[in-house]
Amino acid sequence: MLPTLTFIGHLETPYKTLNDCPNNIQHDGPTCEVVLDSNCAAGLSGLKHGQNVLLLYWFEGVDRSLLLQRPGNKPDKDPVGVFSLRSPHRPNPIAASVVQIQAINGDRVAVQGLDCLDGTKLIDIKPA
Amino acid sequence: MLPTLTFIGHLETPYKTLNDCPNNIQHDGPTCEVVLDSNCAAGLSGLKHGQNVLLLYWFEGVDRSLLLQRPGNKPDKDPVGVFSLRSPHRPNPIAASVVQIQAINGDRVAVQGLDCLDGTKLIDIKPA
Repeated sequence: MLPTLTFIGHLETPYKTLNDCPNNIQHDGPTCEVVLDSNCAAGLSGLKHGQNVLLLYWFEGVDRSLLLQRPGNKPDKDPVGVFSLRSPHRPNPIAASVVQIQAINGDRVAVQGLDCLDGTKLIDIKPA
Repeated sequence: MLPTLTFIGHLETPYKTLNDCPNNIQHDGPTCEVVLDSNCAAGLSGLKHGQNVLLLYWFEGVDRSLLLQRPGNKPDKDPVGVFSLRSPHRPNPIAASVVQIQAINGDRVAVQGLDCLDGTKLIDIKPA
């Protein structure tokens, strides 16, 4: 049986289409919010303002079979292995980004400069 | 429908029981191997000796419901939220560790000082 994930919340960003999303985390980017589902919010206790955390989140609608890809999808580049790239198209489409906590209010954690679509599903938060 | 993961390989370490495993990555620890399944090995192309990579791997046999836990499982500590800890007991038991590539031979990548059981299932490799 394949292992399953359970979503623990979602990310709120200014980006409504993939073309809007920056390619990477922008540490001077706009404020975004990590919103925990109500049944998971208790797990935030102990996190602190200013702390760096690793967020894991889920890329929807990608191709999970592309083992070789052109970097940045540029036609002049030779294809390389997916594990040498941070492309969202990968066997397990999990994004991993380190961000600093700006504020914590109940079930919401403010961070800066996420790179993903508004509404992206959250998988985990860990101290970085 | 819950999202599912597909394992892409496994990790070979000297540790046969949880008591043997170190608490964290040891950069001066023993040589370990990241072994890709044959249908995923093509995805390694482009990775290089000396490069730092983020490994994602799966903790088996954990309790996914523990939102509050004592740090280090020590009875004298007050419980805190799971997302402020790197405990393997978490809603999505995915480990994330950065290691340096020592060598690449076919479908095997040598790295140093992994912290997990021999045979642990691999989920992803990304440039760190």
